Amino acid sequence: MFKKETYIKRREQLRKDVGHGIIIIPGNHEAPCNYKDNTYWFRQDSTFLYFFGLQREDLVGVIDCDNGKDYIFANDYDIDDIIWTGPLPSVKELAASVGVGNTGNLNALRRKLASAKDFHYIAPYRADITRQLSELLGIKYDAVARFASMELTLACVKQRSIKSAEEIAEIEKAIATAYNMHVGAMKMAMPGRYEYELAGFMEGEAWKGNGPVSFPVIMTVHGETLHNHGHNNKLTKGRMLVMDAGCETAMNYCSDITRSVPVGGKFDSRQKAIYEIVLGANLEAIRVTKPGITYKEVHQAASRKLAEGYKGLGILKGKVDDIVEAGAHSLLMPHGLGHMMGLDVHDMENYGQINVGYDNETRPSEQFGLGSLRCGRRLQPGFVITDEPGCYFIPALIDKWKAGGKCKEFINYRELEKWKDFGGIRIEDDVLVTKTGCRVLGKPIPKTVKEIEDTMAS
Amino acid sequence: MFKKETYIKRREQLRKDVGHGIIIIPGNHEAPCNYKDNTYWFRQDSTFLYFFGLQREDLVGVIDCDNGKDYIFANDYDIDDIIWTGPLPSVKELAASVGVGNTGNLNALRRKLASAKDFHYIAPYRADITRQLSELLGIKYDAVARFASMELTLACVKQRSIKSAEEIAEIEKAIATAYNMHVGAMKMAMPGRYEYELAGFMEGEAWKGNGPVSFPVIMTVHGETLHNHGHNNKLTKGRMLVMDAGCETAMNYCSDITRSVPVGGKFDSRQKAIYEIVLGANLEAIRVTKPGITYKEVHQAASRKLAEGYKGLGILKGKVDDIVEAGAHSLLMPHGLGHMMGLDVHDMENYGQINVGYDNETRPSEQFGLGSLRCGRRLQPGFVITDEPGCYFIPALIDKWKAGGKCKEFINYRELEKWKDFGGIRIEDDVLVTKTGCRVLGKPIPKTVKEIEDTMAS
Repeated sequence: MFKKETYIKRREQLRKDVGHGIIIIPGNHEAPCNYKDNTYWFRQDSTFLYFFGLQREDLVGVIDCDNGKDYIFANDYDIDDIIWTGPLPSVKELAASVGVGNTGNLNALRRKLASAKDFHYIAPYRADITRQLSELLGIKYDAVARFASMELTLACVKQRSIKSAEEIAEIEKAIATAYNMHVGAMKMAMPGRYEYELAGFMEGEAWKGNGPVSFPVIMTVHGETLHNHGHNNKLTKGRMLVMDAGCETAMNYCSDITRSVPVGGKFDSRQKAIYEIVLGANLEAIRVTKPGITYKEVHQAASRKLAEGYKGLGILKGKVDDIVEAGAHSLLMPHGLGHMMGLDVHDMENYGQINVGYDNETRPSEQFGLGSLRCGRRLQPGFVITDEPGCYFIPALIDKWKAGGKCKEFINYRELEKWKDFGGIRIEDDVLVTKTGCRVLGKPIPKTVKEIEDTMAS
Repeated sequence: MFKKETYIKRREQLRKDVGHGIIIIPGNHEAPCNYKDNTYWFRQDSTFLYFFGLQREDLVGVIDCDNGKDYIFANDYDIDDIIWTGPLPSVKELAASVGVGNTGNLNALRRKLASAKDFHYIAPYRADITRQLSELLGIKYDAVARFASMELTLACVKQRSIKSAEEIAEIEKAIATAYNMHVGAMKMAMPGRYEYELAGFMEGEAWKGNGPVSFPVIMTVHGETLHNHGHNNKLTKGRMLVMDAGCETAMNYCSDITRSVPVGGKFDSRQKAIYEIVLGANLEAIRVTKPGITYKEVHQAASRKLAEGYKGLGILKGKVDDIVEAGAHSLLMPHGLGHMMGLDVHDMENYGQINVGYDNETRPSEQFGLGSLRCGRRLQPGFVITDEPGCYFIPALIDKWKAGGKCKEFINYRELEKWKDFGGIRIEDDVLVTKTGCRVLGKPIPKTVKEIEDTMAS
């Protein structure tokens, strides 16, 4: 937890930005896995964490813009609980630790909200919270999302987009653990191993840093399958292994790192060729990222590097600018260059991509690929954003485009056929926008061909 | 997955046992963590797994007792999904793999249930499933639990209580991974380490076995705090470390093992004294466990061993049988000896403890301690049950009993004061009831004082 002044200041700013009504920020409940008392790890809601900082389940934070007061509502543990749990702070003590002077039980919350007409909440992403808001506010379950507050949403985005020095320090702590996850897994990436062994190692390293993984580990010799859940493949020589994984600190600040390595430790010439192209795009993004540029422009700068590279291999043809404008290169990278990161690995994704990554000035593209860019808006100092270009040869997608003759003036489909068994590569860093440019956060994790080969040989 | 005949046979038996109406078995959905698309690991519902075996989210299984047919309802992935996920089997193919010939989308399910009056479902433990049943059946959210089917519940308990040879093999696979978890963590249990480092190691080992932990790892130098969530303590010499952890296989069969070790690797005389008493109780339970005896009797046999031991230390006084009858020993072990284990670590806990662990013959006790026994009923060959006696010096509980003069004819409260800083010890194995007795499952994990000291020194 940060010191209480941090949370007081954040709530004051929110009250000022929203200006009227009662802001309700429900903390999360325990999430049952296979029966009620067997739960997944407790993950506090990020909005609650940002403004109230407390990790206990079943709390509700209220920021009253009309009377200027903050509240925490929750039922205290009873004395029998305490025999099993050991001594625990009361709700009053918890609230005081984050500078909240007013507390009450859940009945008091019900009374406070019973007649409230001017209230704000964020659209919930869990069924139990939807149900809770439905009950508390007398709104039908299906209508809860409809009455979510855009004023509150945008006010949260405004504050949380700019990371403070203490937040950056937490993020770098998460990257320090990601270093252990990635370097350890690289060394394990030898033929005969299974993906789940390496993914398991990463899970363990994350928890050894005292927090969970920040999202389910992606560990796959089929990097071309972007939405990959399983870890059942055996590592075999000749495959590239895509490892996309990060962790959360005990305070739930995140890291999100991708490295792609050749099974066995030595890049072959095709792997090296594609790797250098993707690395070039990753470095180009770092080169151009600075306040004032939009991330859409950064995405396009990286795209030009990719297009250039593919031209060199004979996969694409024509002028680089024309290729990028037509989106022909997106056949090999159907996703965006990156997203914000902070208390969520896709920071604030529950607020809606359009509200977080875009604004009145910058709107999402409708083009394939670029349209998937989660954050396109103009960068400001304090933004933390991922830089994660990739190259994927997705047979089903190539076949679909080819059959439709899509971008055939730019794509050498005959040449492309030779790459359909390649798989995929992605390289991802976490980047802080500074006053004058940007800084790749954390202790550098092996990234060049040489660094990776050296690490895997050690 | 087992072969499809296994699932066909199980469903036939269930249809016969329930006899009438439509049995609805909803599979689980993804469980959102901090936003909709960032989910915890997918955990299929155990009832669904038992009868339908499939790991995909959003499936609904239906067993129609009236027309004799089985169904899987789900929406198929669309072609755009497949570009991102790679080729996936259709619902029809999935269903066929577990011997189900009838499939439909979720609208077809709605039509099938629209007019159903005679239906059965298990009371849900997740809010999203409660919501789904509420919608499908036109029952108010709060009333969903009320209309759960006791006939279905008891029919499920009947089948799932008896583990087949193929289920036992899976459980032993889970114990093989637990062996790695526990032996590795024992070796790490040195002063200066933090609990979360060892807990993290265990998480990693679980996933390296290709499944999750079967419940949140308990790793604590305060074993006396039974409901312990955090892992923030530093290991210091003189503390006993309680490690209660298990894993699930890829098919979600569980292990659940507890070992307690002295930080640093050498038991001191007090630690050894308590450890030998608890071990004696664990071994006594193994000695007497066999078909025909109730687990309540086994609990009481273990209790007598504990009482005997505490008498020897001067903590308790009086006749052993009188101590146990009065429940005086339960001050130091307020929980039951064990619970069933299978597809859930507390097997079938979502069906209700009274329905799983008790029956018309054996009812739960109302006595403190014994009343917490999750399974008291008469044992049958094929039951898998945990044997987990413990000893905990819980200061708040000791003070409460002392203040009330509880069992003061059996408890030497003055002597007990000397132990209040001890912490706790628990020893747990997973035991199969055989035709003639029982068998501790899995490769033996170091358990005696000597075995533990040797392991920690190696």
